[in-house]
Amino acid sequence: MADSDFRRELAQQLRVDSIRCSAKAGSGHPTSSMSAADLLAVLLDGHLRLDYQAPDDPRNDHLIFSKGHASPLYYSVLKAAGAITDEELLTFRRLDSRLEGHPTPRIPPTDVATGSLGQGLPIGVGIALAGSKLDRLPYRVWVLCGDSEMAEGSIWEAFEHAAHAGLDNLIAIVDVNRLGQTRETMTGWHLERYAERARAFGWHAITVDGHDVDAIEEAYQGAEATTGKPTVVLAKTRKGRGVKAVEDLPGKHGKPLDDPEAAIAELGGVRNLTVRVTRPEVRAKPYAFAVTGAELPTWALGEQVATRQAYGDALLAVGEQRGEVVALDGEVSNSTHSDLFAKQLPDRYFEMFIAEQQMIAAAVGLQVRDWVPYASTFAAFLSRAYDFVRMAAISRADLRLVGSHAGVSIGEDGPSQMALEDMAALRAVHGSTVLHPSDANQTAQLVAQMADRKGISYLRTLRGKTVVRTPSTEDVHIGGSRVLRSSDADEVALLACGITVGEAEAAADLLASQGTTARVIDCYSIKPLDEDTVRAAARDTGLLVTVEDHWPEGGLGDAVLAAVSDLAQPPRVHKLAVRIMPTSGTPAELLAAAEIDAPAIAKAVGSLLGR
Amino acid sequence: MADSDFRRELAQQLRVDSIRCSAKAGSGHPTSSMSAADLLAVLLDGHLRLDYQAPDDPRNDHLIFSKGHASPLYYSVLKAAGAITDEELLTFRRLDSRLEGHPTPRIPPTDVATGSLGQGLPIGVGIALAGSKLDRLPYRVWVLCGDSEMAEGSIWEAFEHAAHAGLDNLIAIVDVNRLGQTRETMTGWHLERYAERARAFGWHAITVDGHDVDAIEEAYQGAEATTGKPTVVLAKTRKGRGVKAVEDLPGKHGKPLDDPEAAIAELGGVRNLTVRVTRPEVRAKPYAFAVTGAELPTWALGEQVATRQAYGDALLAVGEQRGEVVALDGEVSNSTHSDLFAKQLPDRYFEMFIAEQQMIAAAVGLQVRDWVPYASTFAAFLSRAYDFVRMAAISRADLRLVGSHAGVSIGEDGPSQMALEDMAALRAVHGSTVLHPSDANQTAQLVAQMADRKGISYLRTLRGKTVVRTPSTEDVHIGGSRVLRSSDADEVALLACGITVGEAEAAADLLASQGTTARVIDCYSIKPLDEDTVRAAARDTGLLVTVEDHWPEGGLGDAVLAAVSDLAQPPRVHKLAVRIMPTSGTPAELLAAAEIDAPAIAKAVGSLLGR
Repeated sequence: MADSDFRRELAQQLRVDSIRCSAKAGSGHPTSSMSAADLLAVLLDGHLRLDYQAPDDPRNDHLIFSKGHASPLYYSVLKAAGAITDEELLTFRRLDSRLEGHPTPRIPPTDVATGSLGQGLPIGVGIALAGSKLDRLPYRVWVLCGDSEMAEGSIWEAFEHAAHAGLDNLIAIVDVNRLGQTRETMTGWHLERYAERARAFGWHAITVDGHDVDAIEEAYQGAEATTGKPTVVLAKTRKGRGVKAVEDLPGKHGKPLDDPEAAIAELGGVRNLTVRVTRPEVRAKPYAFAVTGAELPTWALGEQVATRQAYGDALLAVGEQRGEVVALDGEVSNSTHSDLFAKQLPDRYFEMFIAEQQMIAAAVGLQVRDWVPYASTFAAFLSRAYDFVRMAAISRADLRLVGSHAGVSIGEDGPSQMALEDMAALRAVHGSTVLHPSDANQTAQLVAQMADRKGISYLRTLRGKTVVRTPSTEDVHIGGSRVLRSSDADEVALLACGITVGEAEAAADLLASQGTTARVIDCYSIKPLDEDTVRAAARDTGLLVTVEDHWPEGGLGDAVLAAVSDLAQPPRVHKLAVRIMPTSGTPAELLAAAEIDAPAIAKAVGSLLGR
Repeated sequence: MADSDFRRELAQQLRVDSIRCSAKAGSGHPTSSMSAADLLAVLLDGHLRLDYQAPDDPRNDHLIFSKGHASPLYYSVLKAAGAITDEELLTFRRLDSRLEGHPTPRIPPTDVATGSLGQGLPIGVGIALAGSKLDRLPYRVWVLCGDSEMAEGSIWEAFEHAAHAGLDNLIAIVDVNRLGQTRETMTGWHLERYAERARAFGWHAITVDGHDVDAIEEAYQGAEATTGKPTVVLAKTRKGRGVKAVEDLPGKHGKPLDDPEAAIAELGGVRNLTVRVTRPEVRAKPYAFAVTGAELPTWALGEQVATRQAYGDALLAVGEQRGEVVALDGEVSNSTHSDLFAKQLPDRYFEMFIAEQQMIAAAVGLQVRDWVPYASTFAAFLSRAYDFVRMAAISRADLRLVGSHAGVSIGEDGPSQMALEDMAALRAVHGSTVLHPSDANQTAQLVAQMADRKGISYLRTLRGKTVVRTPSTEDVHIGGSRVLRSSDADEVALLACGITVGEAEAAADLLASQGTTARVIDCYSIKPLDEDTVRAAARDTGLLVTVEDHWPEGGLGDAVLAAVSDLAQPPRVHKLAVRIMPTSGTPAELLAAAEIDAPAIAKAVGSLLGR
């Protein structure tokens, strides 16, 4: 067979296999797979350079299905490439299968989970950044997008950033089948409109008949030959292509075909072609950055330092120690203090501008290639990328997120800039770590430990200065805590984190002057919590008061409750948190208004103890 | 004075006042205000039609500062328009002031809070949709954007949707001062690049010298004369315009001027001009939709109905009862079942396509004009718009969010489609309501009650069918619960919601067969929780077991803990929730794997009771 004939046959096989596995599963998206089958057949046969037998080869190209619901096609590609058997293909969507409803990294060489639309392309930007700026290897990143997801703003964040970074190693293929779940997209088959947008954002745009394998060949060659900018191949396709009962018809989204046998016959029957996907040929290894072996910064007891400043200093030191550490920021680096890293290690700093979704997606992409990203912005603005963080957990990504300007203690800027839900949101991410140090020495230790932490770890930093209470030699660790004062006579334990540690300490002084002895615990590790210390406090005092600059839901208080709730004799637990909508004001005024400052804590304890 | 001279003087006043109030506050963004002063002066004097003495007049134009950090300019505009005094202007950022660091609706006629970039424009799309499709009034929506925020994807969601909807009542003004917080934007002063993007998205684009009041006049006239599409005025400006010490210089973002007196002198001194802002002249009232007085749907006990289906049926009935109710969906209406409303009441349905940020922003904009929006998508995808929900609470918006496909019980589609953090995220929104009914009759009652609920209310629905257990005549209310079984001999109380109610009931049967008597409570209202019933169960049994199809953090379990933790004798509480990363599988398999099905519940209770 000539190349073109083989490719057409291969495309038919991909369609047939998409239908077969969806039919076997009883669910799935065969029609969304069928529209892109020709695009993938040509890609596999001659363009993709990926050793499916060595999925961890750093020289491999990357293939991301941003339209993750086309998983039947994705798995059919794996079969055609010899990565899985036909038998495994037919386990699609079963509990015992690696082939989940939407792709996840459980089946190599899948880099990331997709299925929430508009994420694959910005993640691809991250991998392409790794290739061009860090690894310095010629691998390409191919991203298959659906046209419905072109309405997601994150796609345009990716378009802008990829062009800004000149990522000619990134090629997006858009399967413009025009039909969404319930109707035609806003742009329909007007490919030239998409092309104009892409060009206006600085991309090379090629339009093509997505069912003409020769035209696709030409388009890919054009993409590969493009330098200095990314390319988008906009392919006009028909959903359900090749089967009259579903082709280009509404109401055929997201379900198996009614008559799969007839459809398979219409497509020419089952095939078992294998395609020899090109292996990467370059000999080079990933670039490694030189390191200097700097020491973590330390501060003297009693110094006044903002934990965001300590983050910046520590991040720089960790970066100097470890060449794989990289930093990203959302154009607030002089607030988060990632600017210190940016200035000293500019080759490993990525300015992502005001595009938090792209920032998190880029971090996910960088860690795909084993780089160790720290991504920072105001903690409030991490909420902008919450869906990306959620998906990153499903991607089994190792990410370090750093949010500054936590809580009402930021003061005058007002509630739009105050993170008050961040601990709740980040705790509710599978396998996550949530840290909120109260001083600079704690911060530095935790920043260093995050580098080796699996999963999504989150560090919450403060805008204002706090006094250094923790000796630089003291053990500070993820899952730890710090007991500031403790005695056998404690009637209550005050559990605080971040800015409220100082308030709790002052409250304990106030209480002492009134004859009440309080234990004070600095819970700098919210998840995992130091359960032993918290439980001991519960047993010793029977009354825990948690204090946090956060809404009452989902933060330190709830973490403490979860740690003590199934003790044989649970303690009373009272949560002090921000229960009013804050406004502008000084930090002290706002802590007082929220009733989480020292007098409010002392008053609450007095009331709880009936005094 | 000629118009142009007056406008130039007015602009200088706006600059001077921006400097004065920031200097007095000791913080703020005067330079980001000064760049846009000419743009606002011309807008106020001859284009804006807004009665500042009657901010609730439905005929008023709307003015949104998407670049909310230019609040000094915004408040200087209010002074110039006679809405506030010079004395109040100088209260900027004080605890006792309505003039917060970033604008909020506490100071009329401010429609919404801004300060998280990229939100003002998509909210403006919502108000413009209200004007053209619902109110049917000729008011315009003017949105001042910064150029840094053009990197936010949400801006491009707004561009696409506004053009798709033909919103010629929407005018965006982009203050292209090219300087972000730490550096030049990606696009700098290349106004034509922005214009090409805007045109490619279907907008009329005008570029202008943003400091030439006559050119601005011409641009606004061009915008006002444009029909069938929205207009963007791209204005080349200089940050800190008019003061040599800061003009177009880096490092001058977000802080008062070092020498405000000298700067004020350079700008010609303090002025006290008042501008007569045009009042709206049209006589028309907002359009009102006819209503039919339909009854809420009910179902017979024992029927099998998905709560998402009940949502669709109930929403349609509520829409037929109340003309102010409108619906939005993110192109999954046949999954959430807002399609029933869309089909019967198409004039009040807004298809927002796959753009969840724009969907929530549009809902915020619609409720600005007193419409009652219900916005639905998969619950997992509401996480895409979390920052918009957070900001909506600061906007004091009344929104109804509906998320379908909650939890592992969706089955084969896998974790990307499963909401497992939604209750945590939505509980951690100030003033929110979180509802998770277990059957159709509960759902209908709650959907109806949400229409009158203040703040952000969230309804979580299930993909699969559940049996109707609640009689249609039974009282179901926000803050309520339903006791399925109860006796004086109860040794444990099982608290469940949604899909786990049936599991808890079956577990109670299992336990009964083993000699253990369990109370079963359906907590369909998570926030507010029915604290009386939960506390009674705690007192009666001393052992609560919560069961939820959600991560362990921030959901029902934590809500229950918060309700009982400061009882004099707190109960033991054990949380059953999803603690493993789910995969694909059948609903039953996945509930079993997560150990939240009936056998797992019974086993956990047995273990807790030492049996």
